[in-house]
Amino acid sequence: MMTQPNRIWTAALIVVGDEILSGRTHDKNIAQVAAWLGVQGIRLREVRVVPDVMDAIVEAVNALRVRNDYLFTTGGIGPTHDDITVDAVAQALGVPVVIHPRARAVLEAYYATRGGLNEARLRMARVPEGAGLIENRLSGAPGIQAGNIYLMAGVPSITAQMLDGLTGKLEGGLPLLAHTVGCWVAESEIADLLRETEAAFAGVAIGSYPFFREGRVGANFVIRSTDADILAACAHSLSNALAELDHEPVDGGI
Amino acid sequence: MMTQPNRIWTAALIVVGDEILSGRTHDKNIAQVAAWLGVQGIRLREVRVVPDVMDAIVEAVNALRVRNDYLFTTGGIGPTHDDITVDAVAQALGVPVVIHPRARAVLEAYYATRGGLNEARLRMARVPEGAGLIENRLSGAPGIQAGNIYLMAGVPSITAQMLDGLTGKLEGGLPLLAHTVGCWVAESEIADLLRETEAAFAGVAIGSYPFFREGRVGANFVIRSTDADILAACAHSLSNALAELDHEPVDGGI
Repeated sequence: MMTQPNRIWTAALIVVGDEILSGRTHDKNIAQVAAWLGVQGIRLREVRVVPDVMDAIVEAVNALRVRNDYLFTTGGIGPTHDDITVDAVAQALGVPVVIHPRARAVLEAYYATRGGLNEARLRMARVPEGAGLIENRLSGAPGIQAGNIYLMAGVPSITAQMLDGLTGKLEGGLPLLAHTVGCWVAESEIADLLRETEAAFAGVAIGSYPFFREGRVGANFVIRSTDADILAACAHSLSNALAELDHEPVDGGI
Repeated sequence: MMTQPNRIWTAALIVVGDEILSGRTHDKNIAQVAAWLGVQGIRLREVRVVPDVMDAIVEAVNALRVRNDYLFTTGGIGPTHDDITVDAVAQALGVPVVIHPRARAVLEAYYATRGGLNEARLRMARVPEGAGLIENRLSGAPGIQAGNIYLMAGVPSITAQMLDGLTGKLEGGLPLLAHTVGCWVAESEIADLLRETEAAFAGVAIGSYPFFREGRVGANFVIRSTDADILAACAHSLSNALAELDHEPVDGGI
C-alpha cells in the first residue's frame, strides 16, 4: 500500500444511551475517545448521541460508517434487554448475529468464579458475523470490531481499557498538534487579529474560547496544525501581537 | 388549538465545536439542555456534535429541524471568525442574515462602558431574517430563535441563562418521570427479571447502568414513565423482587 503522509484519517462516534439523552448521566466517552483518537492521528469529525432504539442506531451507523475511516460506538453491549447495539450494527451491515467462540470462552473463564455463564451473560459473546474482538482486561466482556466499526462499552473505565487494547493498531495520519495562548482580553476586542493570524499561517486553525474567571474576562486561543514549526511560529506571532496591544497573558498556563 | 395530552414533544441538539471534537473541552451543554428539556416535558431524541464547518452544520440543521418539534444549537454565536452558526442556520432556512435592531441596541448598551460596539461585537447582533431573540442577562449578546431553532451560547453558564429565559415558554407534554432502584447485584444476574418487569408495566422503560464502587459490582435500574402511579408500582415490584432474591439495595440513594 502506498504511504500517504498527508492523508487525513477521520472517525465518527455514536454514543448509544437513553441515560445521556435524559441528562441523568454526564457523558465522559466523547472527550475520552476524542483525545485518544487525536493521539492516533485520527480526527473525530462527528458525534451522534442516539437513544436505545434500533432504527435510530441503524440510521446513525449507516450514515457515519461510509463517510469515515473509522466508526466507534459506546454503550449498549451489555447483558440486559436494553443492550441492542450489536443487533443494530449487524442489521446495518446486513449480516446475522452469531456467538463468537473466543468471546464465549473469555466469558466462561471470567464467570467461572462469579456464578457461571447464564443466558444474559452469553449475550455479551454475540457479534455481527465476521467480527473480531477488542480485549477488555477489566470486566471480561470484550469490545467488538465489525469492519471499520468499533463497538465499545458504555462504562467509561471499561471503554478506557478497550481503547488501551487498540492503541497503535489503527492506521492514522499526522497528529493535529495544538498550542493554547491564554490572554486576559475579550475575544471581541481582537477578532480581526485572530482572523488575520489564522490567514497568515498555512493550514492553521485558531479557535477562540472565552471564559470568566476571577471576575475578569479572558479567552483561550487554541491554535491547531499538523506542522510543529508552523504551529510554533503562529503561536509566537499571536502572543507578540497580544503583548504589543498590552493584553496580559494568562499566567501559569491554561 | 386542540389539546393533545398524550402527544410526545421532541427536540434535538446540535453542539457546534471543534473544541469538543478535539477532546480538549468536556461538553457540559448536552446534560444541561437534556435536563432542562425534561422539565419542560420535551424529550431529547438526538444530539450531534459537529465541527465549526459550514456544510457540517447546515446538514445537521436540515436533518434535525424537520423531524423534531424543537432544535437547539450550542456554540458558534460569538464575535470571532470561527463563529458561523448563524450563517449556517440562515443557509439551512434559505434566508439572508440581517442585523436585529433590538440585539444591536442591547449590545450598544452592554458595551457602552466596555470599549464600545466594534465590528466584531456587532456580529453578535446578526440573525437569520425573521428571527427573535432569547434574553441573556449575563453577557449581553442574546440567543436567537429562528422558526423552531433555538441558537444558544457555547459557554455553559451563558447557555444556562438563555434556558432560564425560555423556561415555561415552549409547549411540551407530560414530563417523563424517573425512579432509580440501586442494587448491589451484577445486572447480568437479573436480566430476565428486568425484561419481564418492563413488559409487565405499560409504557414503562427500564434502563440498566452497571457500576463498580467500593470494590463491589452494582447497578442502577432507571425506570421511566409519564404516569406516576405506574412508575411507583413498577419500582415497588422491582425492589420487592430484588429483595426476595436477597440482593442488597444501595443505601442512601444514588
